[in-house]
Amino acid sequence: MPFAKRVRAQLVERLGAAHVKDDPATLYVYRCDALTLHGGAPMGVIFPGSAEELAWAVALFNREGIPFLPRGAGTGLSGGAIPGEGAVVVEMDRFRQIGPVDTVNRTIEVGPGVVNIEVSRQAEPHGLRFTPDPSSQKVSSIGGNVGENAGGPHTLKHGVTVNHVLGVDAVLADGSAVRLGGEAFGRPGPDLTGLFVGSEGTFGIVASVNCRLTPLPEKVATMLAAFHSVADASQAVSHIIGAGVIPAALEMIDQTIVDAVEPLIHAGLPRGAAAVLIIELEDLADGLGEETERIAAICRQHRAAEVRLAGDDAERALIWRARKEAVGAIGTISPSFYTQDGVIPRSKLPQVLAEIAEIAAKHRLLVANVFHAGDGNLHPLILYDSTDEDEIRRTHEAGREILRVCLREGGALSGEHGIGLEKAHLLGEVFDEATMAHMKDVRAVFNPAELLNPGKIFPTPGRCSETKAVRAKSGIAV
Amino acid sequence: MPFAKRVRAQLVERLGAAHVKDDPATLYVYRCDALTLHGGAPMGVIFPGSAEELAWAVALFNREGIPFLPRGAGTGLSGGAIPGEGAVVVEMDRFRQIGPVDTVNRTIEVGPGVVNIEVSRQAEPHGLRFTPDPSSQKVSSIGGNVGENAGGPHTLKHGVTVNHVLGVDAVLADGSAVRLGGEAFGRPGPDLTGLFVGSEGTFGIVASVNCRLTPLPEKVATMLAAFHSVADASQAVSHIIGAGVIPAALEMIDQTIVDAVEPLIHAGLPRGAAAVLIIELEDLADGLGEETERIAAICRQHRAAEVRLAGDDAERALIWRARKEAVGAIGTISPSFYTQDGVIPRSKLPQVLAEIAEIAAKHRLLVANVFHAGDGNLHPLILYDSTDEDEIRRTHEAGREILRVCLREGGALSGEHGIGLEKAHLLGEVFDEATMAHMKDVRAVFNPAELLNPGKIFPTPGRCSETKAVRAKSGIAV
Repeated sequence: MPFAKRVRAQLVERLGAAHVKDDPATLYVYRCDALTLHGGAPMGVIFPGSAEELAWAVALFNREGIPFLPRGAGTGLSGGAIPGEGAVVVEMDRFRQIGPVDTVNRTIEVGPGVVNIEVSRQAEPHGLRFTPDPSSQKVSSIGGNVGENAGGPHTLKHGVTVNHVLGVDAVLADGSAVRLGGEAFGRPGPDLTGLFVGSEGTFGIVASVNCRLTPLPEKVATMLAAFHSVADASQAVSHIIGAGVIPAALEMIDQTIVDAVEPLIHAGLPRGAAAVLIIELEDLADGLGEETERIAAICRQHRAAEVRLAGDDAERALIWRARKEAVGAIGTISPSFYTQDGVIPRSKLPQVLAEIAEIAAKHRLLVANVFHAGDGNLHPLILYDSTDEDEIRRTHEAGREILRVCLREGGALSGEHGIGLEKAHLLGEVFDEATMAHMKDVRAVFNPAELLNPGKIFPTPGRCSETKAVRAKSGIAV
Repeated sequence: MPFAKRVRAQLVERLGAAHVKDDPATLYVYRCDALTLHGGAPMGVIFPGSAEELAWAVALFNREGIPFLPRGAGTGLSGGAIPGEGAVVVEMDRFRQIGPVDTVNRTIEVGPGVVNIEVSRQAEPHGLRFTPDPSSQKVSSIGGNVGENAGGPHTLKHGVTVNHVLGVDAVLADGSAVRLGGEAFGRPGPDLTGLFVGSEGTFGIVASVNCRLTPLPEKVATMLAAFHSVADASQAVSHIIGAGVIPAALEMIDQTIVDAVEPLIHAGLPRGAAAVLIIELEDLADGLGEETERIAAICRQHRAAEVRLAGDDAERALIWRARKEAVGAIGTISPSFYTQDGVIPRSKLPQVLAEIAEIAAKHRLLVANVFHAGDGNLHPLILYDSTDEDEIRRTHEAGREILRVCLREGGALSGEHGIGLEKAHLLGEVFDEATMAHMKDVRAVFNPAELLNPGKIFPTPGRCSETKAVRAKSGIAV
């Protein structure tokens, strides 16, 4: 369904012809995001250039009853930026305003189109950083990070995006522009800021974000520990956490991942190990040596074949590059993959990882694991061939089974990728009726006509998303 | 307005006669909380003993159209537990279930009636603690901490209660029992847990809380720095934060506070100084000495008259006792006081503290300052005599002016004490119309008939709370 002529004319007049697109190539491209599913073609794509233009366009869509949704870099893994048939994509790419850094209040105001890592680059000369570091940080945008309440390897110590956002300028579904939160500590009244962060673009569109910055650690130590079995590595994770250590990051990657990424990055990941832990410690200054020794001892106690400390910053950077580009590297060994995002209490790691392997075997599929072990936030990647209809079916089946195991063990449906389009049909399995009703009613406060990003988080009754797997892109986020 | 006979009979039958109170002494006591204002007498007070009894009673009140509100230890400073005329107080004192400590997942499940410090006492043998440490921690209960999203001195590094709660069993206003959040990382869907924490008892009543525990720091250093002027101390705060240090706590107390508390506690606070900073560093292990030297140098650069490091744990504990009992000590020098809770961007500290002194002088009042300087969370205590009507009037006037200065400087209406009854009339001055409407609509989702804790956060149209200052109690929280 194309733009109605009258609507198109108004958009072009206000935004300029270059910022209103509905040519076939654009419509094709905007059918999918990093979930690698696509729905129908959008009605069109607009590129507002200011908060005023954004509010004006949203008010227009609201008046005209046209569904619409925001989009940042499109790196989301739950399909939050996949338009329904006939929705308008509001591309936030032009909102690139950034800074200056306020060193005393430790804040920076940035546009939603700013790429995550740019915020830390801006802050670094002042000894500060923006802590949320999703693996997509080189490409994903702050608006998307806010929408999905993005995590990352350093979530274990530093929390998720909501802990690092002080205020948000937002345009709500009716076109009203509001400031949620502020530049100072404290969020009196019902915490709409906290509610907005993580609402997956269904409560409003971000026009500007006041980010909290955090001092860079005085010193950092990054270790690799290789194990002959996933069970040993999992037990080591439990032991490290149970011993009262708070690593800044505690990541696990399995042999499939190492075999895929090592030939590309040459980070020195131990080949042949069943599982490798990446353990990072921060802030310990002179005490660092003692603490790394303690962790090394725990790893050896759990039969680690090798424990190695990165010798310098270059080696550290290389290890993290390997971790953050691991998912993209899967493209070299499988035509497609499907990224899961279940969470479990971390004490259940050994048992659940074993069950995931069994589920994969049962469905004749290969699963690669690269995930935030310290948080119990699993990312099993199910490898498949998108030209094989039966394999697609088995992939979806295995994904559902994995999520059900996570839920059975007291875990959550998503750690950081959101519910989006992907898991909307599962929400009712997780929450009781009263909670579901209250969640939906809260959404209705912000999005009464469901024009804003319809079909996300909650299944839309009467709307059957026709989704289809397409070839996986590489370089996407986990 | 007493219990209707029919309602009273049902309550007594289900809860037992000992747990349904409406004698005059009980009704008098429950008219006020630590705000030291009181409204009308409640209809009665009930003491449910289980989540089932709680849900049953709430459903009864909902059916009968009887207003009701939860109450923990009553230490709240914004009047959140002050009943309106004819409301039923739901006293949560019997919900004292606690533990066990899960060391691998670092969690503990506790009842809302458990006193804050008991959680940390339970966790301590395992090298863990519950980080939120309001000054009321020896008396305030976890349910109240959740309701008010309590902070404390260590908020600067560790965040507020919402950052340390994984899940909440709640009874909603209609009596439905729900589990918000869980035991694992991740809050998919609209974050009702985050919304519930800090909703000041207007969204539901807490029946159980899954608390996140944090490892105890390896080492702690606590310093005192005394200054001849508040301006110098404020500049030192800005400088410490701007230099990239993250103290665990950074508190300021002024001369009036020192003079009140030192004769009682003998903590060795420097007498005669205009302002004293309490600075605590954590987690630095062997690097601690270097870091304390750096902070001492900054303090001296801002003309600190004295900088002293606590020699041992006993001295540290004494300093914190002085800080946490400072507000209670005010009782020895003033018959009453009114605690403010405004927030400012911390860069504005010197200017705003000077303005507060001017406001006090203009109204011929004494203001004592004891507050979370690192967070910019001010707690000016306005000292007054509750038998002097004119002084009461000037106290309220000065309080409003102080808050308006905070707001003008980009701050917030409350840092940690909540809006409650106290600041409900100011909310409309702070938030724009669209934000106010959305906040109210979100409340209406949880509390459609406004039976649950009416008149809190938002002013209730048509309901004029007759409030009256009463004598201050000592030992209450800041």
